[in-house]
Amino acid sequence: MAEEFPMTGGDGPNSYAKNSNAAAKAADGAKAMLVAAIFENLDIETLQSRPTTFRIADLGCSVGPNTFIQVDNIIDAVSQKYHKKSKVQSAGELPEFQVYFSDLVSNDFNYLFSTLPRDRQYFTAGVPGSFHGRLFPEASLNFVYSAYALHWLSKIPDELRDINSPAFNKGRILYGNAPYEVGQAYSAQYAKDIKSFFHARGQELAPGGLMLLLIPGRPHGTLPAQNSLAPYFQPLESTLADMVNKGLLSEDKFDSFNLPVYCPSVEELGALIEETGCLDILTLESIGQMPFSLPSAQGCRAGTESILRKHLGDEIIEPLFDLYSKNKNIAAGSASLVHDDSMAVGFFVLVKRKLL
Amino acid sequence: MAEEFPMTGGDGPNSYAKNSNAAAKAADGAKAMLVAAIFENLDIETLQSRPTTFRIADLGCSVGPNTFIQVDNIIDAVSQKYHKKSKVQSAGELPEFQVYFSDLVSNDFNYLFSTLPRDRQYFTAGVPGSFHGRLFPEASLNFVYSAYALHWLSKIPDELRDINSPAFNKGRILYGNAPYEVGQAYSAQYAKDIKSFFHARGQELAPGGLMLLLIPGRPHGTLPAQNSLAPYFQPLESTLADMVNKGLLSEDKFDSFNLPVYCPSVEELGALIEETGCLDILTLESIGQMPFSLPSAQGCRAGTESILRKHLGDEIIEPLFDLYSKNKNIAAGSASLVHDDSMAVGFFVLVKRKLL
Repeated sequence: MAEEFPMTGGDGPNSYAKNSNAAAKAADGAKAMLVAAIFENLDIETLQSRPTTFRIADLGCSVGPNTFIQVDNIIDAVSQKYHKKSKVQSAGELPEFQVYFSDLVSNDFNYLFSTLPRDRQYFTAGVPGSFHGRLFPEASLNFVYSAYALHWLSKIPDELRDINSPAFNKGRILYGNAPYEVGQAYSAQYAKDIKSFFHARGQELAPGGLMLLLIPGRPHGTLPAQNSLAPYFQPLESTLADMVNKGLLSEDKFDSFNLPVYCPSVEELGALIEETGCLDILTLESIGQMPFSLPSAQGCRAGTESILRKHLGDEIIEPLFDLYSKNKNIAAGSASLVHDDSMAVGFFVLVKRKLL
Repeated sequence: MAEEFPMTGGDGPNSYAKNSNAAAKAADGAKAMLVAAIFENLDIETLQSRPTTFRIADLGCSVGPNTFIQVDNIIDAVSQKYHKKSKVQSAGELPEFQVYFSDLVSNDFNYLFSTLPRDRQYFTAGVPGSFHGRLFPEASLNFVYSAYALHWLSKIPDELRDINSPAFNKGRILYGNAPYEVGQAYSAQYAKDIKSFFHARGQELAPGGLMLLLIPGRPHGTLPAQNSLAPYFQPLESTLADMVNKGLLSEDKFDSFNLPVYCPSVEELGALIEETGCLDILTLESIGQMPFSLPSAQGCRAGTESILRKHLGDEIIEPLFDLYSKNKNIAAGSASLVHDDSMAVGFFVLVKRKLL
């Protein structure tokens, strides 16, 4: 059974809407590449000759404003490509755009809908469900986008919580610096999830349709244990360990708690896409250091509150983040960047649905 | 500026989900007609020859379960029509179905999404926005459905609140038994709204696409003042008047409050559809008495709470519905039917988008 852990909704101080700067910066850094990707790779000819609907989906959109900004970037680039085309062929009115904002059922769609840009140039819809399965009709999408969402696994591998397994993940909430078997358990779950993801998108993308993914990854040639997200979650892990020491959390509960996130290497990801069969890889590269800071208590809470509540109980939340905010690395300034830049990479992945 | 007054969300005792029996009964009564309408009028040939996506929209869907039940009825009927066809032509796999659930931005989409049937045979999306304007790309819908939602106006006509207008609606919350000018103000607003509705749907329906509307109306040859919804809202009106008498509500506030709902006659509605130009009327008829009861306090509250809060203030709600529940007609039993059946009619409207 897949589990669901959405970002915190609404626009309160602990919400994702108010705490998504790191994702915004990372996505903004990829804007020029996004525009170039569309200019170079979108075949207007493959679409029907009369103006039709151009359908875009943002998978794992959470709430605004990041998703609205990137959707505007995509539509601007597609429109420019159409205009360029029409100068040559004297064809080409613009198509109408329809944008699907998709995230887990538990995402705060009410808030998302209430904050949609008033001057938007597209029709809109919200699509609830997991991107590890089918969400859209066959060949109905022209452009799929997903930014910093695909590191979320559909579930936590069972063996991490099995005291008799070599992958029992005692004293950690992730696989950074963990034994080999822990990394393997995460890696196997990721392979399963991402194959489901690409299989579903292969069916949903129209022939010639593009998919652009921004994915946190780890550098070429590294092992899962050298996980690039570990520094990001280290303050959370050490705060939970502190709570165990203070008697505020049982050791058993701490040991059984793991975050369902994983960062692949380029080789790992490329092999998994190839297996899908119907997607051509146009670009698969590291775009260098992800510009993230150690998350503040609010920033960490926006992304992890729902999973923490579910596994550790509601009563843990306030004392946990109170203690977190006093962590010496965090207290020193939430703007302190994670300096080990060799570990913190983002991948820019562009694939194209093969023609039939 | 259009106003928004959704049904009460969630599944609490005052929610629409728990208080929509009347609408359910009325829609259920039309099921056989719905099925026959699809069998007789859906041209499978007009769709592309290979299986494609069949897109359905429920406009003013509120939350479940009514909308889920009717969507299943529609899909069953369309599927049966496809199967019948394929026996003759040996063609015909089923298309994939995509269902758009649409209602105002303030509708409780989070609740709607969390209650979607688990075994549904369609892809789904929520579409926030007013059906008085465009919601979908051109020619993208194959079947539009709307049940007991089109009586809601986009706004309350200004003159109803203008003490110097002959349409000033003193001591009433609707136009039943009101002066001619009040009915005319409502009628003019309805004409404007419904023309916008049909114009938008004319653009959104694919050629040959069907639209089925269930609309509360008034009998042939009656005047607006003989409004068929008046009995339904009479207990609310008399309870508000009681509150004025008890000094719990100012007379000014009561006089300035009006419900934005209107019931057309068959002639009125037919003329407005014809004006659209691109829609052929296949059926436009009264399906007789709408099987509604005087609404209980909870039933009335589910449909009117948001508009009452907005115009009369939050503090009015509890005392109002406390008093409402003691109304002698209501207290006598919420199952007491509205007996004046000549006034309470439902229209079954089936139109088809002309071929290009």
